[in-house]
Amino acid sequence: MNAEIVAVGTEILLGQIVDTNSAELGRKLAEFGVFHTHRQTVGDNRERLAEALRLALSRSDIVFTIGGLGPTQDDLTRSGIADALDDELIYDKSIEEGIRAKLRSRGVPLVPSMKNQAYRPSCAIVIDNPNGTAPGLMCQKEGKTLIAMPGPQSEFLPMLAGSVTDYLKSISDSVIHSRVLRVAGMGESMIEREIADLMEMTNPTVAPYAKVGEVHLRLSANAATVEEAKNMLAPVEEEIRKRLVDSVFAVDEHSLEEVVVELLRKSRQTLAVAESCTGGGLGFLITSVVGASGEFLGGVISYSNEMKQDMLGVSTETLEAHGAVSEQCAKEMAEGVRKKTGADWGVSITGIAGPNSDGTDKPVGLVHIAVSNRDETTFSENRFPGERRAIRERSVQQALIDLHSRLTAL
Amino acid sequence: MNAEIVAVGTEILLGQIVDTNSAELGRKLAEFGVFHTHRQTVGDNRERLAEALRLALSRSDIVFTIGGLGPTQDDLTRSGIADALDDELIYDKSIEEGIRAKLRSRGVPLVPSMKNQAYRPSCAIVIDNPNGTAPGLMCQKEGKTLIAMPGPQSEFLPMLAGSVTDYLKSISDSVIHSRVLRVAGMGESMIEREIADLMEMTNPTVAPYAKVGEVHLRLSANAATVEEAKNMLAPVEEEIRKRLVDSVFAVDEHSLEEVVVELLRKSRQTLAVAESCTGGGLGFLITSVVGASGEFLGGVISYSNEMKQDMLGVSTETLEAHGAVSEQCAKEMAEGVRKKTGADWGVSITGIAGPNSDGTDKPVGLVHIAVSNRDETTFSENRFPGERRAIRERSVQQALIDLHSRLTAL
Repeated sequence: MNAEIVAVGTEILLGQIVDTNSAELGRKLAEFGVFHTHRQTVGDNRERLAEALRLALSRSDIVFTIGGLGPTQDDLTRSGIADALDDELIYDKSIEEGIRAKLRSRGVPLVPSMKNQAYRPSCAIVIDNPNGTAPGLMCQKEGKTLIAMPGPQSEFLPMLAGSVTDYLKSISDSVIHSRVLRVAGMGESMIEREIADLMEMTNPTVAPYAKVGEVHLRLSANAATVEEAKNMLAPVEEEIRKRLVDSVFAVDEHSLEEVVVELLRKSRQTLAVAESCTGGGLGFLITSVVGASGEFLGGVISYSNEMKQDMLGVSTETLEAHGAVSEQCAKEMAEGVRKKTGADWGVSITGIAGPNSDGTDKPVGLVHIAVSNRDETTFSENRFPGERRAIRERSVQQALIDLHSRLTAL
Repeated sequence: MNAEIVAVGTEILLGQIVDTNSAELGRKLAEFGVFHTHRQTVGDNRERLAEALRLALSRSDIVFTIGGLGPTQDDLTRSGIADALDDELIYDKSIEEGIRAKLRSRGVPLVPSMKNQAYRPSCAIVIDNPNGTAPGLMCQKEGKTLIAMPGPQSEFLPMLAGSVTDYLKSISDSVIHSRVLRVAGMGESMIEREIADLMEMTNPTVAPYAKVGEVHLRLSANAATVEEAKNMLAPVEEEIRKRLVDSVFAVDEHSLEEVVVELLRKSRQTLAVAESCTGGGLGFLITSVVGASGEFLGGVISYSNEMKQDMLGVSTETLEAHGAVSEQCAKEMAEGVRKKTGADWGVSITGIAGPNSDGTDKPVGLVHIAVSNRDETTFSENRFPGERRAIRERSVQQALIDLHSRLTAL
């Protein structure tokens, strides 16, 4: 069983957007062991799309299209599929009704062009698009399957995780099961040195990926069933955990922020943040965790020095003697937000994200982070490389790492 | 003159890396007006690569390969090109010498496998790779040109900016100049209805792309010089601005957050934020703008009701009678943060990001946003579709749109 992706969109060819959808779908196919040897990308051109689909259908069992299902004149995937399959488009009243119902629930009127989305090749069945008006489509003909998915990421990803995953499950006879061990506090080369022999195995495999402030180790096993694959992975994971001691902080999609919220929940403690150079990024990340409201009270974005004084109680002496980017200021911010909010934990970030310094001779990338509870206020001084964006992301990540290590040391 | 890209690498198909190189090359081709209708991606397989190249050469004048030039067994692009051109590989002593010289200057020894990089199709000339040992290659045969570029970004991008740009300049007699108008407050289909006739033009062209909370209109003109192209775009832009009234908020790479900070700067006004369901995301986005510290004072992440009361002065009556996700609460948050911080503007966000509601019968996706200055507190009630992440991003974006419309109404 092999598959092929045909991405549709002149904006992809012109480089106006980077095609991450195909990468996501590629990962999903790999997960189910579906062989995948070609990808094509064509512009918004009906003839070239039909030609690309004919080529794909001639050599692949399952063909996915991504994009071109919208309501505008550019959106030609429906027609291209009909051409390639020698089929014709029919107007599907039930699709129109679905579109109307969706718009109604959002209080948005139906623009006439949206009715274009109600056409489908006569052989197609409709795949629900929970986040958009254009449905996905699936055609099966002469042993081949063609699946059309919408291009906008907010519609593509849920359809991939939902109906398309279900479909792949139903046709696949071997699975690749993966488990990601997330490691913080060790660099990639240090980790590789510890597990070099494990990285040479072929099934299961162990592959490291460096991320912002952490390293992911992906363990993958190819087996007939998920159960069997899991049994193959278990001893490898045990060995890695033994070698890397306490550095594995989470597994799979569990992010550091989820782990931190979970640790707070278990110990029935609360958290507040005080952010300067990250401007709210730490709070934003923590509140991405569903149900963080039990543990996360909120915080103060103290971008100006006045805010640091008025809302967090940072002293004038500290700001005058050491400046806002200093150990003292970070500690007073963390303690201040903890006391002001009544939280058990206060975490603060103050640093120089660049591109320019703060008028002192402190370097861009210098970031002070403090973690405070009733017993103790600890502190890290960091020098992050890269540009403003990278420095801010690393700062948020490091604050979570610092808090995590305090929480696990309890 | 038309071109085609063949990206080579199993890791691209498997989704282990996202192919940004093809997007960069696509942008470059567009800049020089080189027509570009297809892209293919194949794995590290000699036969399939040769087949893809034959197809590309049959329909395109210039074919680019990206990747597969390294020293390992996986790196098959040299062989694939030779096969597709009915040519053979020869060992080029001068390439080997170039590799040796590069390694010497870095103090790195020659690993035997690196000599594989000294093979080239007999018809090929060598393109210097300033940042790597694998040279680029260019073959010309029967009126077709084939250019092989290395895959690692640190080698690909400099070659693209250098030799490949020079080559494209030499063959191109026209340029495509583009300008992006960024539109907020109108959906894609509503915009299309206003400018449907303009979207049918062929030179310049007008094409819409929906983004989170905004729509980008790309205006592109093909002309002999950039100057001439700009002159063709000007009247079209004027017409679009007239029809869409005040909805065009920025041009080209300027983001809404940059425009908002710039508007504040010009009017010498300051801003503070009060965020509930977005947890700091608005502050994080605003502080991504370099130099926002003159205009952005900071804010309060009031995730808990207590924080809304204690730090923003939201009244108990409001919370009891209307709840935290209400017009009244949003207004009191925006006014509260403005007064507490002494900022000229206060912006607040309070909503239900999901996946669950807040214990009331209010729907997930309901988000209240208020914008307050000394004269007036305005307000929008929004229902955003999608999941938690999308709802939070849309909320941040909508808050900027609401603030922007107040700032431009001044």
